[in-house]
Amino acid sequence: MIQKTISDYSEFQLIDKIIKKIPNFIPSDIIVNKGDDAAVFKANEKSLVVTSIDSFVENVHWNPLKQTYYHAGWKAINAAVSDIAAMGANPTYVTVACNLKKKMLYKDFLQLINGIRDACKELKINLIGGNLTSASINVITVSAFGEIQKKNRNIKIMQRGNASIDDKILLSGPLGGAAAGRKLLKKETLTQNDKKMIKIFNQPKARTDIGEPIAREGVKCAIDISDGLLQDLLHICYASKVNAEVKLEDVPTYTEAIKSFGLTQAQQMALYGGEDYELLFTANTKTINHLEKNHIPFYIIGSIKEVNKKKQNYNISLIEKDKITLITKKHGWGHFLNE
Amino acid sequence: MIQKTISDYSEFQLIDKIIKKIPNFIPSDIIVNKGDDAAVFKANEKSLVVTSIDSFVENVHWNPLKQTYYHAGWKAINAAVSDIAAMGANPTYVTVACNLKKKMLYKDFLQLINGIRDACKELKINLIGGNLTSASINVITVSAFGEIQKKNRNIKIMQRGNASIDDKILLSGPLGGAAAGRKLLKKETLTQNDKKMIKIFNQPKARTDIGEPIAREGVKCAIDISDGLLQDLLHICYASKVNAEVKLEDVPTYTEAIKSFGLTQAQQMALYGGEDYELLFTANTKTINHLEKNHIPFYIIGSIKEVNKKKQNYNISLIEKDKITLITKKHGWGHFLNE
Repeated sequence: MIQKTISDYSEFQLIDKIIKKIPNFIPSDIIVNKGDDAAVFKANEKSLVVTSIDSFVENVHWNPLKQTYYHAGWKAINAAVSDIAAMGANPTYVTVACNLKKKMLYKDFLQLINGIRDACKELKINLIGGNLTSASINVITVSAFGEIQKKNRNIKIMQRGNASIDDKILLSGPLGGAAAGRKLLKKETLTQNDKKMIKIFNQPKARTDIGEPIAREGVKCAIDISDGLLQDLLHICYASKVNAEVKLEDVPTYTEAIKSFGLTQAQQMALYGGEDYELLFTANTKTINHLEKNHIPFYIIGSIKEVNKKKQNYNISLIEKDKITLITKKHGWGHFLNE
Repeated sequence: MIQKTISDYSEFQLIDKIIKKIPNFIPSDIIVNKGDDAAVFKANEKSLVVTSIDSFVENVHWNPLKQTYYHAGWKAINAAVSDIAAMGANPTYVTVACNLKKKMLYKDFLQLINGIRDACKELKINLIGGNLTSASINVITVSAFGEIQKKNRNIKIMQRGNASIDDKILLSGPLGGAAAGRKLLKKETLTQNDKKMIKIFNQPKARTDIGEPIAREGVKCAIDISDGLLQDLLHICYASKVNAEVKLEDVPTYTEAIKSFGLTQAQQMALYGGEDYELLFTANTKTINHLEKNHIPFYIIGSIKEVNKKKQNYNISLIEKDKITLITKKHGWGHFLNE
């Protein structure tokens, strides 16, 4: 009998298994539980602690032959803090566990620290603790913290499961830059345009400038783009039990990516690329008016649709001129699936 | 020119480098900063959040050929929560990042989850979030949380740097069981006695039952035994700028370890073994009286001594009948040092 391995399941099937098998054992002040971008628990009547954990693995999330350890440190911090921004929280602290190879050059170790340091400085957060162990591969795991202050009666936490029918789907910025940069790492002679794309891949910035402001203006549902637009939008669909409709021509891409790869490929990168760390969120007309009034920039790319009640396989209708493609779960990218 | 690698430095030299290179970038309510068992920040006027991060690496912290994934999950949770107990906090939550090999058997994945679940249940804590990524090695990183309620004017946080001259050095329980168990994993035919030792290694329990109670009774300085008694006591010496004196015959060992290995080796395991997760703490006479009055069990193994002001190399005098051995930093076990 051939035994199943975890690569017979998708990342999200495995996560579902964990969530189902591990219930909560004590009554407690958990506001948002496992399964969202970050967990939230009550610190007191006036403030909430938001926390998220994220691993950054060599040869999975970064390529040591093409990227520096500075970039690994920078990205690990920004990827983790991006989840805090996606909850509408103000980031405060990080703790970092580094599993490092013994043969890592000391100068690379210093570069890694510099990347972590500069990311913390840029994001205005403090590193408050960590752990260092040897391993046969380099892994940086960041536990990020944020806080949500309760300024009036309502607590503003943005969750994946809060999208409502007829909400518009919004994006905080253009997508596909990171995917273009990742592809260009392999190129030998780089143009200025190429270098700009690579920098977007190597040094993304968590949208902490926009997470808390949009929550304050009434946005209730958000996620950060780490896996790719369609994959992350499907997370919203499944958590909110809705379908979505996206107009391809409204999805903002980088002119630099179009220049290097042409429109079609730049659009594919925007849809499937991931690691952009822009925020994807939904809002009704009233909230959109608030965002505009407060000069918060966004792109509208589609809207949230009701599902046929009998279906449980939520989907996205991707509208491209005269063609509609139905995007379902299997299109997503899974770390564990052998593809 | 041969370039230095991180194995030219000890784990603690590398940690020092990180602490020195990454200052705090924003003014904030950090009560205990990087460098202790866990970090502490203020949630509000009445309570503090305590957090710690700890990685559990295959072939470093557990041996997949000799231990089950259930044990890996159990130990990873307990090792992280042990740091929360060592601060005098009440453990509340964990988040877990799993880096797993794609070829991991699905049944092993389920065992891992069961180990995590049972540990959470036993410790009365909730798993509130996590992250799952593929990697070429299995690593479980746990971010643990606890709270300290401010019940009167004093906040009771136990820190490594709070040992005072003439304090007695106390232990919450016998040591060396884990080291004996680790050694016995290699044995082919196991006695009942051997199995007991192996269980101590495979399923240690964080002393959450004693961490908060001793802090409440006035203990100001504690650390958990993860690296080994002498190594962890040296952490207290360096943080508190003191020396220590330990009477070998007063260090509690397991009778089972003595039975299997003889007294001398059982004592060596107690001194250097690590992974016992007992609490090592210091207390003055008044606090010791409080502990006794409240029926909190402990062993007195030595006392804290003043240092010669000119020296910065803190040490432990290990007293063994007519012999005194001076224990200094270089005796410690370093993950990164090529030994």
